[in-house]
Amino acid sequence: MSRPRLHQLLNELYTSKEATLIHQVLLHEDFQIFMTKHSLKMPLKELSQAFTHTSFSHEFNVPHQEQMEFLGDAVLQLILTDELYRRFPEEKEGRLSKLRSAMVNEKVLANIASGLGLNELIIVGKGEYKKGLYEQATVLADTFEALLAQVYRHHGLEFAKTLYLGWLNQFVPTAFDAGFLDDFDAKSKLQEKSLALYKKLPRYTAEQKGDEFEITLWINDEVTARGVFSSKKIGERELASVVLKKGNI
Amino acid sequence: MSRPRLHQLLNELYTSKEATLIHQVLLHEDFQIFMTKHSLKMPLKELSQAFTHTSFSHEFNVPHQEQMEFLGDAVLQLILTDELYRRFPEEKEGRLSKLRSAMVNEKVLANIASGLGLNELIIVGKGEYKKGLYEQATVLADTFEALLAQVYRHHGLEFAKTLYLGWLNQFVPTAFDAGFLDDFDAKSKLQEKSLALYKKLPRYTAEQKGDEFEITLWINDEVTARGVFSSKKIGERELASVVLKKGNI
Repeated sequence: MSRPRLHQLLNELYTSKEATLIHQVLLHEDFQIFMTKHSLKMPLKELSQAFTHTSFSHEFNVPHQEQMEFLGDAVLQLILTDELYRRFPEEKEGRLSKLRSAMVNEKVLANIASGLGLNELIIVGKGEYKKGLYEQATVLADTFEALLAQVYRHHGLEFAKTLYLGWLNQFVPTAFDAGFLDDFDAKSKLQEKSLALYKKLPRYTAEQKGDEFEITLWINDEVTARGVFSSKKIGERELASVVLKKGNI
Repeated sequence: MSRPRLHQLLNELYTSKEATLIHQVLLHEDFQIFMTKHSLKMPLKELSQAFTHTSFSHEFNVPHQEQMEFLGDAVLQLILTDELYRRFPEEKEGRLSKLRSAMVNEKVLANIASGLGLNELIIVGKGEYKKGLYEQATVLADTFEALLAQVYRHHGLEFAKTLYLGWLNQFVPTAFDAGFLDDFDAKSKLQEKSLALYKKLPRYTAEQKGDEFEITLWINDEVTARGVFSSKKIGERELASVVLKKGNI
């Protein structure tokens, strides 16, 4: 895979440390391309700040994404609460709350972020780039929240809501299905059980088989379930659910 | 103090159980007066549902406030996060988060709710009325959140924000001051310490002295500090802060 264009420039900056390159990074055309694609309008620097990890900020002394992420989290919570309230006005508060937690889960957010290709726009420090930090779920999820904050600040809540729900529908189409929470619950329930019984987390390994993945679920270092699925995520949930139902843990 | 007019009708309903009175309660003029006072426009039943405690709902089979409260909490979180972000763009996320927690604290919300006289509009079941549930901090805070949800649903986020910040400024004028969090911290820190040392919470008692209050702070059932203050809230914080600073716990 060829290196993304913004990241190419980033690597030049790591090597040369030339100050003029910092601004070229923050005003890179890739940010404009992203905005055009999603009908966003804001100063380029406002957008690139949402993609600036603290490690880049500390290394090159530019503003970072951290406070935006804090705001974005609140924006996301309201958008989801509003939508859940609209869809399930009779549902108990406890279940609405669980459903919302499942949807703001780091992995779910990282899925959307990956789907949008945010990894190619995230700006990290030199050492962190080598460690591939811009591909990590935490960083992807945080950046997604920072991006949402900027959409909210420059376009308002209604626009942010429409954009986010569109992305959610595109990348996590089952999010509002009845089974979503149960599947989500399965993995966390299995985790709790395994910790309680063996003081060890369950592990999932995956092997690509053509277009699909063979997923193996290990509990207490033993193979407990295995199957072939269209995605790793679906496979992991399915295996966790099967093991819980059969009770073979 | 004469019994508020809505509550008078409520007591007639408890006695007579006449179904027609239920609708008179839910469409009571006091709700219209509240809306007019705060420039709100929504169907009366939409407003009175925000004031309907689950105990009344279960007793008379009408919709209650619970899901609205869930939505209102998210509205409140976003309003505050937005305002904190605007006021303190450079502040660390951890401190912003603490400040926000202090401001959505049940007691702070109950203060605003009391200031607005929401207790006179809260509709609870018969047994709960006798226990004075409509004056309890939890119920006041929950109702305030449900009310905010309805303001948001019928008037949008910007209106809800302006209204809420106006109320906050009126009833908790020190909310955005630097000392607010420290004062808030003092009471919770003292609580932790007292629990750790004596497995007992600190107690505060108050005696009215003209326009002021003499507040006594009891730790492990002994008088630890005492002073006269303009309000109970200020006094309690001040005493907690003094005891912590002097280290006499």
